Amino acid sequence: MIPVAILGGSGYTAFELMKILLRHPHAKLVAVTSRKADTPLVAEQHPSLLGRLDLRTEPFDADRLVARGVKCAFGCLPHGASRECLPPLLNRGVRVIDLSADYRLRDPNIYAQWYGESHDDLAHLAQAVYGLPEVYGEDIANAQLVANPGCYPQTAILGLAPLVAGRHIELQSIIIDSKSGVSGGGREPKPQFHFPECNENFSAYAVGKHRHTPEIEQALSDIAGEPVEVIFTPHLVPMDRGIFSTIYAVPRRPFSETQLLDLFRGYYRGSPFIRVREGLPATKDTAGSNFLDLAVRVVRGRVVVLACEDNLVRGASGVAVQNFNRMFGFDESTALL
Amino acid sequence: MIPVAILGGSGYTAFELMKILLRHPHAKLVAVTSRKADTPLVAEQHPSLLGRLDLRTEPFDADRLVARGVKCAFGCLPHGASRECLPPLLNRGVRVIDLSADYRLRDPNIYAQWYGESHDDLAHLAQAVYGLPEVYGEDIANAQLVANPGCYPQTAILGLAPLVAGRHIELQSIIIDSKSGVSGGGREPKPQFHFPECNENFSAYAVGKHRHTPEIEQALSDIAGEPVEVIFTPHLVPMDRGIFSTIYAVPRRPFSETQLLDLFRGYYRGSPFIRVREGLPATKDTAGSNFLDLAVRVVRGRVVVLACEDNLVRGASGVAVQNFNRMFGFDESTALL
Amino acid sequence: MIPVAILGGSGYTAFELMKILLRHPHAKLVAVTSRKADTPLVAEQHPSLLGRLDLRTEPFDADRLVARGVKCAFGCLPHGASRECLPPLLNRGVRVIDLSADYRLRDPNIYAQWYGESHDDLAHLAQAVYGLPEVYGEDIANAQLVANPGCYPQTAILGLAPLVAGRHIELQSIIIDSKSGVSGGGREPKPQFHFPECNENFSAYAVGKHRHTPEIEQALSDIAGEPVEVIFTPHLVPMDRGIFSTIYAVPRRPFSETQLLDLFRGYYRGSPFIRVREGLPATKDTAGSNFLDLAVRVVRGRVVVLACEDNLVRGASGVAVQNFNRMFGFDESTALL
Amino acid sequence: MIPVAILGGSGYTAFELMKILLRHPHAKLVAVTSRKADTPLVAEQHPSLLGRLDLRTEPFDADRLVARGVKCAFGCLPHGASRECLPPLLNRGVRVIDLSADYRLRDPNIYAQWYGESHDDLAHLAQAVYGLPEVYGEDIANAQLVANPGCYPQTAILGLAPLVAGRHIELQSIIIDSKSGVSGGGREPKPQFHFPECNENFSAYAVGKHRHTPEIEQALSDIAGEPVEVIFTPHLVPMDRGIFSTIYAVPRRPFSETQLLDLFRGYYRGSPFIRVREGLPATKDTAGSNFLDLAVRVVRGRVVVLACEDNLVRGASGVAVQNFNRMFGFDESTALL
Repeated sequence: MIPVAILGGSGYTAFELMKILLRHPHAKLVAVTSRKADTPLVAEQHPSLLGRLDLRTEPFDADRLVARGVKCAFGCLPHGASRECLPPLLNRGVRVIDLSADYRLRDPNIYAQWYGESHDDLAHLAQAVYGLPEVYGEDIANAQLVANPGCYPQTAILGLAPLVAGRHIELQSIIIDSKSGVSGGGREPKPQFHFPECNENFSAYAVGKHRHTPEIEQALSDIAGEPVEVIFTPHLVPMDRGIFSTIYAVPRRPFSETQLLDLFRGYYRGSPFIRVREGLPATKDTAGSNFLDLAVRVVRGRVVVLACEDNLVRGASGVAVQNFNRMFGFDESTALL
Repeated sequence: MIPVAILGGSGYTAFELMKILLRHPHAKLVAVTSRKADTPLVAEQHPSLLGRLDLRTEPFDADRLVARGVKCAFGCLPHGASRECLPPLLNRGVRVIDLSADYRLRDPNIYAQWYGESHDDLAHLAQAVYGLPEVYGEDIANAQLVANPGCYPQTAILGLAPLVAGRHIELQSIIIDSKSGVSGGGREPKPQFHFPECNENFSAYAVGKHRHTPEIEQALSDIAGEPVEVIFTPHLVPMDRGIFSTIYAVPRRPFSETQLLDLFRGYYRGSPFIRVREGLPATKDTAGSNFLDLAVRVVRGRVVVLACEDNLVRGASGVAVQNFNRMFGFDESTALL
Repeated sequence: MIPVAILGGSGYTAFELMKILLRHPHAKLVAVTSRKADTPLVAEQHPSLLGRLDLRTEPFDADRLVARGVKCAFGCLPHGASRECLPPLLNRGVRVIDLSADYRLRDPNIYAQWYGESHDDLAHLAQAVYGLPEVYGEDIANAQLVANPGCYPQTAILGLAPLVAGRHIELQSIIIDSKSGVSGGGREPKPQFHFPECNENFSAYAVGKHRHTPEIEQALSDIAGEPVEVIFTPHLVPMDRGIFSTIYAVPRRPFSETQLLDLFRGYYRGSPFIRVREGLPATKDTAGSNFLDLAVRVVRGRVVVLACEDNLVRGASGVAVQNFNRMFGFDESTALL
Repeated sequence: MIPVAILGGSGYTAFELMKILLRHPHAKLVAVTSRKADTPLVAEQHPSLLGRLDLRTEPFDADRLVARGVKCAFGCLPHGASRECLPPLLNRGVRVIDLSADYRLRDPNIYAQWYGESHDDLAHLAQAVYGLPEVYGEDIANAQLVANPGCYPQTAILGLAPLVAGRHIELQSIIIDSKSGVSGGGREPKPQFHFPECNENFSAYAVGKHRHTPEIEQALSDIAGEPVEVIFTPHLVPMDRGIFSTIYAVPRRPFSETQLLDLFRGYYRGSPFIRVREGLPATKDTAGSNFLDLAVRVVRGRVVVLACEDNLVRGASGVAVQNFNRMFGFDESTALL
C-alpha cells in the first residue's frame, strides 16, 4: 500500500479522489491537509463519506507528511497555492500529482500572461510532466511532478490528437466549442453558480479568454510538431457534471467518416479509457467514469469531432489516479473501472 | 397612474414585481432604491429588463420619494431593514406593502422569539394589516401598511382555512409538510444554494424551527377563533420556483371527498386566484401566475390537503399587487392574468 | 377584436400562443381544433389555464371556423398535417400563420429532400411569406399565408444577417453550433426526452442532418444575394426552454468588436425585439419573452456571434403574434411585452 | 466466482446491478435475458458499459441458464412477468432475488387487491423471504427466493423500525410523506416523466393509493407484532435519483431527541449501511451508494423521522447485492463500498 496525501480536501475534485482512493487496492489515504486552522472530520465536509473515512483535516506540514511515510501527494489546491505548497514536498522527495494549473504551461511567460502572476518555481516547472496519459504516458511513469491536465483541454486535445499527429487538418483556426456542467466552477459559492441563476439557463463565458486555451495549444503543438492555434469558447450547462466539446476542423484532404473512424481507433488502440464510438456520444454515458468518448463526422467537407467526459473524474481525479497508477507501476485502470 | 416605488431592487421578488408593474395599466414605477452607494441601471441587475426599464437604482430617501409623488412603496428589503426604512415613509403618508416579515406578527414578543431581535416600531406594527386578500380583504382595502404574507404560509393558511373556519378538524398537531424551489432562499449566493450542492438533491431544513411557523399559527388562530398549533417541515426542491404543501389533519367528524370539495369551493367562491381542483395539483400549473391551487383527499380517515403556488408571484410579488389593487380600488386581478 | 383560431391545441407552442392571445387586446381566441375525436376542455390539457379559458377542443372544420368569423388561424400542427388542413382555410379567405415547416422552403425539391415527402400544395407554397419580421417585415404585412420561422433558424439568421447583408464574411462554411432546451422536441413522450435520459446530460444530435439547415441557408442567401452554406450542429440541453447559438465566421476584412457592435446596432435599429448587448447573453435573460439577444466577439481574427432566445416564445408563438400584429396593422409589440 | 444472471436487462435497476456486479470479486455476470426477440449487445442499451461488458441479451430460457451454471438470478422484470419467469428457475434449484413486487406481499388477497391480478404462484410465494437485511437478515441467508424490497418501503420501514419494535409510538395513522426522483418511474417514456412535464415541477401522485402501502404495513406489523396502519403520500421530485421520506408519529411517552438518537443507534448497531445522523440528511449524501441515512427530531411532542437513500442502489440493486452477499456467505458489504 502506497501512503498518499491530499492537499486541500474541501472541494469537488478532492472528494472524487477520496472516493476512488477508498477503492484502490494499493493506495492508502493517510492525510488530508487544509490551509484553514480548524481540523474538522473530512466526512463532515463530504457527508457521503460518513462511516467510510475517519480522517481529520490537518494543517499542511511537509515534514509531518514525510514522517507519515507519504510517497505521493495529490494537490487539490487553487493555482498559486500549489506553487507555494508543493516545493517543500518535492524537495523532500515526495512525488506529486498537481491538479492545479501551476505546472501545466512550460513557458512561464505564457503562465504570467494568462494567469496574471509571475511563476516563482521555475526549477520544478522545468521538470514537470503534463499528465495526459494517452500522449505523455512514458514520461509520466518516471516523473516526480505530474501536472494533471485541465478538464476542457483533455476533450480538446484527445479529440484532435489523431488529426494533428498526422497533420491531417489545418492547424490554425481550429474551433473548439465546449460545454461544461457547473461543478467545473468549484465549490465556492459565486453569483453565476447560484442555483436560480444557472438552473434553466445556458450561457457562454470567457469567450476567447479562457485560461485553458494555451494549455490546449501547447499539447496540440507538441503532437503536431508545429504551432497549433485554436478558438476556444466555453459554455455553462445547467447540470452537475460533464464536458462536451464540439470541434470543427478543415481537413487538408477529403476524408470519409469511415476513414476517420479507422484513424481514431488506430491512434487509441491500447488506451483503455478512450472509446471511439460510431454513435453520437452523450455526457451521461461517461458520468462518474474515467472514460472519454469520441465520435467523428464529416459535414460539408469539414471534420466535426464530438468529445465528452465526466469533468471531475476523467477531467481531474480519475486521470490523476491513472497517472498515479503509471507512476507507481500499477495497471493503468486500477480502481478506475 | 399611481406612482409607485420599490425599496430594494436587486432580489428576485423585486424583479417579479417589476415585471408585473410594467404590465399594470394604473401603476407607474418611478423609483427603485438601494442601500448601496452605486446607482446602476436596474436592468443591469436584471438583464431580462434590458430595453424595457430605464430606471437607475437610487439611494433610499423618503423626502425625495414623496417629492416624486410616490403614493405606494413596495418593500423588498430583508427583515430588520424594513423596520428602519418604512417608518419615515409611513410618517409622510405613503402607503406601504412590505414583503418582509417585519410587520406580519402582531405580538412583538413572538417576533423577538423567532427573529432574535426586539421590534422597535410598535406603533406601525399595531396598524399593520396581514396581506392575505382571501382572509383579510376588507382590512387590506383601507390599510396604510400591509404586511405581505410569507410564501409558505399562504399555502398552509389557504389550504386549511375552510377546515379551521368551521372547526371541522382538530386544531392541534396539524402537520404541514412543505417543499420549496430554491429561489425562495433569495439571490445571495450561499453554500446550500450553490448549484452543485442543491441540484439533484432533496433535503429538509429548519425542521420545527422555521420562522413561518408563528405566522401560519397567527392567521389560522384568527380564522378559527381559538389557538391553532402546527408542525411545519420545510424542504428544498431542485427547481427554481414553486411551493407545494401536503397537509394532514384529523377531522372531527367523517367527511367524504365530495363534501370537502364542496366545502372548499364554497369558501373560495369569489376568490379569483384560488382554484379548487378535482385532480391533483402540480407546481408547474401555477408557475409564473398568481393562482394558488388546492385539492383535498381523505386517506384512512385523515384529511389530506394539497396546496401549491408560484413562490415568487403568488407567494410574494403577485399577491403584493393583488393587495395594491385592493388598496387603490382597482379590480383585484388587474395585471395578474 | 379579431376572432382567431388555433389548429392543434395540445402542444407547447399552442399553449404559449394561448397565454399570449389571452393578453392581446385586439385578438379573441374563438376556437381550438384537434384531429382527435374527443373534445376535452383545452384547460384540461393545459391545467395552467384552468379558470382562464373555457373553450373545448373541437374537430377541424373549415366551414365552421369561417362561420364563426375566424379571420386568422394559427397552425400548430406537425409538418405534413399543415399541408392538409390549411388549404381549405386559405381557399375560404382566412389568413394563416403556420408554425410548422410546411411552407418555409420555397423549393419543393429541397422540401422533399429534407422532409422525405413530396409537397402537394405548390400553389400556396408559392404565395407563402417567410415570417421573420426583422427581414421580411414588409411582405408579412400583406401576406395571406405566413410560414412562421423555425426556432433554431431565427438565432442563426438574425445572428448572421448584418454580416451577410454587407457580405462582410465568407459565405461558405459558416459554423452554427446551437443548443436547445428539451421543449423544442415537442410534447410527445420519446426515449430521448424521458427525464432520466436527458436530465444531467448534454448531447449532440442530427449532426449535419437537421432539417433547419436549408431554412437557414434559404434566408441567409436571400439576405446575401448569393448562396450561403452553413454547418449546423444542434445539441440538447437539460432545461425546459431556451436556444443558444454560437456562430463562427471568417471576416473578409479585419473588424474590431466596436465596429461589429455598431454594425449590428445599426442593422437592428427599429427592431424592438432584437437586443444587441455588450455583455454576453444567457438564455434565461430571454426566458418567456419575445426578445432575441445578440453579442459579437472577435477571437483570433474570427467573428464569434452569440445569439439566444426563448425557443417557444420568440422561437415560435411570440414571433407568430408579432407576425399577426403586422398582418392586422397593430403595433408590432402588442401583447408581447 | 458465482455465475449469476439478470432477467430483464433494459431498465435502470438492471443497469445499476450490472455496474455493481462488474465490481464484485465473487460474482460473474454470465447472462442477461430479455423478453424481446432481438439480442442486442447489453452495452448498446446502456452505453456507459461500452468497453466493459460484452454480453448480448438473450431470450429467457431456464434450461439454458442452468446449463450455463447460473446459481443466482436477479429478476428485473415488471410485476406479473416475474411470476411467469421465476418458477421454472426456482424449480431447477436456482436461487432468485426478485426486484419486482410479485413475492413481497405474503397474503395473495392483498396482492390481488392492490395489483388488480390474482397471484398464481402461491407455492413460491409461501417460501419467499422479504429482502430487507436489517430486519429479515437471518431468513435471507437461507432463502431460495428473496423478494427484494420496494424503494419507498425501505425508507419507511427502517425509519420506523426502532420506534415500532419497542411500541414507542401509536401504530395507527403514522404519516409517511415521501418524495422520489424520476428514475423510480422506470425507463419507459410516459407523459408524466417527459422532461418538460416533470422538470421544474413538483407534484403528488397516487395519494392514499400507492402499491407500496401494504408492503410498508406488512413489515412494520411484523416488527411491531401487531397491526400497523400508515398514510403514505408519494411525490415526484425533478431529479434523477433519491428518495426522501418525512415521517410523523405520535409517541406513547415523551422522548428527547437524544433518547431517540440513542434508540436508533442502538437498533442499527451492526448494520453497516444505516447511518443515524445528528445533522439533517440529504439525498445527495446517499447518491449512488447503498447507505440509508436517518435523523430524528421532536417537534411539539411529535416524532419526526427523516430518512433518505438512493432509490436505485439502496432502493433496489444495491440491497439486492447485499442480499446476494448474505445468501452466498460473503461479507455483507462486498462490492457495495
